[in-house]
Amino acid sequence: MATFTDYLKFKTKNRHEFINITPDVNRVIKKSKIMDGLVLVNPMHITAAVYVNDAESGLIKDFQEMLQRLVPTEGNYKHNLTGEDNAYAHMWRQLMGHQVTMPITDGELDLGPWEQIYYAEFDGEREKRVLVKIVGDRHCE
Amino acid sequence: MATFTDYLKFKTKNRHEFINITPDVNRVIKKSKIMDGLVLVNPMHITAAVYVNDAESGLIKDFQEMLQRLVPTEGNYKHNLTGEDNAYAHMWRQLMGHQVTMPITDGELDLGPWEQIYYAEFDGEREKRVLVKIVGDRHCE
Amino acid sequence: MATFTDYLKFKTKNRHEFINITPDVNRVIKKSKIMDGLVLVNPMHITAAVYVNDAESGLIKDFQEMLQRLVPTEGNYKHNLTGEDNAYAHMWRQLMGHQVTMPITDGELDLGPWEQIYYAEFDGEREKRVLVKIVGDRHCE
Repeated sequence: MATFTDYLKFKTKNRHEFINITPDVNRVIKKSKIMDGLVLVNPMHITAAVYVNDAESGLIKDFQEMLQRLVPTEGNYKHNLTGEDNAYAHMWRQLMGHQVTMPITDGELDLGPWEQIYYAEFDGEREKRVLVKIVGDRHCE
Repeated sequence: MATFTDYLKFKTKNRHEFINITPDVNRVIKKSKIMDGLVLVNPMHITAAVYVNDAESGLIKDFQEMLQRLVPTEGNYKHNLTGEDNAYAHMWRQLMGHQVTMPITDGELDLGPWEQIYYAEFDGEREKRVLVKIVGDRHCE
Repeated sequence: MATFTDYLKFKTKNRHEFINITPDVNRVIKKSKIMDGLVLVNPMHITAAVYVNDAESGLIKDFQEMLQRLVPTEGNYKHNLTGEDNAYAHMWRQLMGHQVTMPITDGELDLGPWEQIYYAEFDGEREKRVLVKIVGDRHCE
C-alpha cells in the first residue's frame, strides 16, 4: 500500500472561474505510480469547490445562473459584516458539493464517458491550492 | 492492503427513478473479502447521483419536489441549446451530492439505523453504470 | 497499511446546532497512529451533515437562513405524513453535502488556512453518532 500527495496551485484572473483539472489529476496519479486505489481532490480554500460533471460551456453557465438564483452574490449576509464580501461563495461551494473522491484503475482515473473533474473558483484573483491525496497499490493484483 | 472494483449496471424504465442499492454494495463488499476499509460508490454518468438517506417513499417524493422547485426540469438552460434536454439533471445531481464514500467494518457496510444507499437516476431509460471501488484490509487487525 | 475506526457521540441541547469537530477528528487520528492517508467523517444519522467551511458565527447563521429559504422547516412534506416532523432536515443535509473525506499528512489533518470540519445537527436533542474511519500508513514513506 502506498500514499502520495500533491498540491495544485491556482490564481484565476477572474473572480469566478471553472477550470477542467482532469489532466492535472491524471498527471499526479502517473507521478505517484499508484495503479489502483482512490484519489481525493479537495480544495484547501472554502470559497471554491471541486466537482465532476460535463465539459460543456453552456452547462457551466447554467451552473452559475443556478447558484446566482439560489444564493445571490449580493445579499444581506451576516458573514459580510466581518468585512468580507464573499459569503455567497462559501454557500455556493456547499451546493456544488465541495470535494470529490475518484477511482484509480490501471494507473489512471476510471471515468465514465463524460465525467470530468472541475475546479470551481468562486472568489479568485488570489492564490489558492487544491490537495490531491492518493491511497492505493503500486502494483495491480 | 487490497483493492477491489466492480460496476453496477442500471437501465431504468422511467426517466426519474430512485433505487436502493445497499444490498448491491454489500454484495460487492462480500465478494471482495475486504473486512475493513472504505468503499467509494460513484455514478459514472453525470445525470445521476448516489446519496445516503432514508428508505421512505414519502421522502423520495419530497426530494423530487425540492429538486423540481429549485431547478425546474423545463427552463431556459444553455446546455439544452446543444440539442440535449437534460440540463436540469446535471444540476440535480450536484444538489443531491453526486457520490458517497462509506465505511466497511467486519466485512460489511457500517451503517447507522436508517442509512441506506440510493442510486438516483435523473435521465434514465438507457444504460448507466455505477463504479464501486473498495480500499482496505482483507484481515481484521 | 492500517485502518482505524472511532465513533463520536453527540446529544445537542438545541434542535439545530453547528459544532466544530476538527479537534475531535485530529484526536482520533493521533490515537490511530496513522501518519498518512484518508479520514472519512460520516454522520450515521440522516438528519445531520458533516461539512468543511469557516469557523465564523455569521456564516453559520447565513447557512441556516439559506437552508430555511430553500427548504422551509414547515412545509407540505410527504415524509411528515408518517408522523415525523423532520422532512426538512433530511433535505438540508443533502444540500450541505452529507459527509467529507479529508487528507492526513504527517499524522494530522492536512488543512488549508480556514478549513474546519463541522457537525451540523438539524434534528437534535437525542443521541447521534458520527463515524470516523481512517485508511493509511502508520509510517511515513
